[in-house]
Amino acid sequence: MTAEELFDIRTGELDRHVYALSIGRWDALAKPIDGLGAFEKTISRIAAIQGRVIPDISKKALVIMCADNGVFEEGVSQTQQRVTLDVAKLMGEGKSSVGSMLKGYPVETAVYDVGINSDKTPEGVIAAKVRRGTANFTKGPAMEEKECLAAIETGIKSVESLRNRGFGIIATGEMGIGNTTTSTALLCALEGLDPKDFTGRGAGLSDEALHRKTQVIESGLRLHMGQHTGRKLSDPKDAFEALRRLGGLDIAALAGVFIGGAVYGVPVVIDGLISAVAALTAQRLLPGCSGYMIPSHMGREKGMDIVMQELSLRPVINADLALGEGTGAVLIFPMLDMVMNLYGGGTAFDETDIDRYERFEG
Amino acid sequence: MTAEELFDIRTGELDRHVYALSIGRWDALAKPIDGLGAFEKTISRIAAIQGRVIPDISKKALVIMCADNGVFEEGVSQTQQRVTLDVAKLMGEGKSSVGSMLKGYPVETAVYDVGINSDKTPEGVIAAKVRRGTANFTKGPAMEEKECLAAIETGIKSVESLRNRGFGIIATGEMGIGNTTTSTALLCALEGLDPKDFTGRGAGLSDEALHRKTQVIESGLRLHMGQHTGRKLSDPKDAFEALRRLGGLDIAALAGVFIGGAVYGVPVVIDGLISAVAALTAQRLLPGCSGYMIPSHMGREKGMDIVMQELSLRPVINADLALGEGTGAVLIFPMLDMVMNLYGGGTAFDETDIDRYERFEG
Repeated sequence: MTAEELFDIRTGELDRHVYALSIGRWDALAKPIDGLGAFEKTISRIAAIQGRVIPDISKKALVIMCADNGVFEEGVSQTQQRVTLDVAKLMGEGKSSVGSMLKGYPVETAVYDVGINSDKTPEGVIAAKVRRGTANFTKGPAMEEKECLAAIETGIKSVESLRNRGFGIIATGEMGIGNTTTSTALLCALEGLDPKDFTGRGAGLSDEALHRKTQVIESGLRLHMGQHTGRKLSDPKDAFEALRRLGGLDIAALAGVFIGGAVYGVPVVIDGLISAVAALTAQRLLPGCSGYMIPSHMGREKGMDIVMQELSLRPVINADLALGEGTGAVLIFPMLDMVMNLYGGGTAFDETDIDRYERFEG
Repeated sequence: MTAEELFDIRTGELDRHVYALSIGRWDALAKPIDGLGAFEKTISRIAAIQGRVIPDISKKALVIMCADNGVFEEGVSQTQQRVTLDVAKLMGEGKSSVGSMLKGYPVETAVYDVGINSDKTPEGVIAAKVRRGTANFTKGPAMEEKECLAAIETGIKSVESLRNRGFGIIATGEMGIGNTTTSTALLCALEGLDPKDFTGRGAGLSDEALHRKTQVIESGLRLHMGQHTGRKLSDPKDAFEALRRLGGLDIAALAGVFIGGAVYGVPVVIDGLISAVAALTAQRLLPGCSGYMIPSHMGREKGMDIVMQELSLRPVINADLALGEGTGAVLIFPMLDMVMNLYGGGTAFDETDIDRYERFEG
């Protein structure tokens, strides 16, 4: 894929008629108006994305993008870089945190190596390595243009393949030591924010290490975003440059997953900060993309609020999650199953003696 | 049960040693410290309640208390009183909203008629009618002392019976037209609040009807709480009087369920406002009871924030739910299943080459 091809991509069409029919279906069920609140709207949005009043989310997938980050060498993480590979190995065996959580609950999990700093890709992991980790963004751009495009394309194609196999909803996850640093840097670049206000403790940092992480992000922003500081990047080309210079291969690939969702009409679930920043990047690369995104949890990192406001999305889970791997995104799956049980098979007012509730609005 | 017997009840003991062991178990798993945030704490609290490091929540129950409210005749609801009976019938057939949601997901549902305004109890519903609806609280106390005690006792015994049959966690639900009015009145009485600030639209009210509902609650508070207005009721006897005068049989029975949880060592899940006010009442009747409560969702009604603060609990779901029947409470069950999969069967750092994360705290 060339940069021109990326900027030529257009989203599918959200079916507004289906959305209206879906709201009508909710109101016909024997329950108070809007009784299931945000969950009703989520199902109606999924209906509009899939273009059918009763959407099919029975087949669910989780796409996890794994990659290393050159900025790791600046001392921004409590742990060692090798952990990316170690956890990816566990993922391949279904033994990582999200693998354990999903035991007995059918979710097809596709783990991609888009840039682990290692010769090999672990067993059970899809080999799509663009390079062995990005370059250190405090010294130069994290990626070449074609590397960034390759990672995005991997994400788009993962959705095409899952859609063709009948998957109706896709959750996103990631693994990459140092990726709260890259995603915070990218968020600050996209939104014109001061990293002092938005740098968090990631998987666990002392006060001193947090200070160091903030300085590293500031230095990256100075080097790459000098002329842009303090203002939002709305031009897709600027957003791409910010991604290429400050982001990670995992973030680029996840942005591709969100773009793929909008192109192929599959709802894609946002996980924590890294996934959320990828979602925001996708929305900047492809305006309208956010209509195909489903939020899951608010996370513990400070930037989540901003991203959710920018995407006009409100997560239903508020539990200070900070694990990654898509663990927060998959938590909404069984809730959506329950809500779909009611939506698809609930009792309508017409089948009872009960009068319908009226909708008071405006 | 006499009032003396009620006030003599004491909670079981939360096992602090088990709680500490449980936190240690979480930290030994190959994931960032506190990665699953509030869910980790919830599982550890359940462990402390059950007194075992790996708690058993495989058998789950939902207790729904149904009752009518005399204050209905003041015009506080959009719908007819008969809907309580109609929905209870649907519940008995497993066709109500929560019944539809739980299709294919095993939750034992026990629906109690503690005061439906009807001669009979519908099929599939447990007959425990105390009286045919409460009295109108704008004209006198909603219940006699012995009626209120009977409803509480039904709740306590429901937990005893479920515990003896091996159920490890119980969700609460209710059905009773007019019960956002009774629960808001009771909340204002318990907390010394002004109903103008806390009266909500329930299952859907116009501005005019909302104004009427507020006036009805004010009139009840004037009649029954004159001398108490503006201050918190902390004495169990005062809380009981507020429940008896302003509450409903559903609220009293649910307060009994929360008390039963604390007596028999079973975690009880709070649903929306009505359930939450019953939980707050239980905590006032039996201080320490809140240690056995599990919050689920924040709900749409205005009083939820206050109740959760008073109980020092923070719900993980924030989705503007306002359906009742326990629909919000059961949504956390499959999330807890996933989290238990990780907690009970996840990969420990010791089984990997990965170094443990360190806990940085105060």
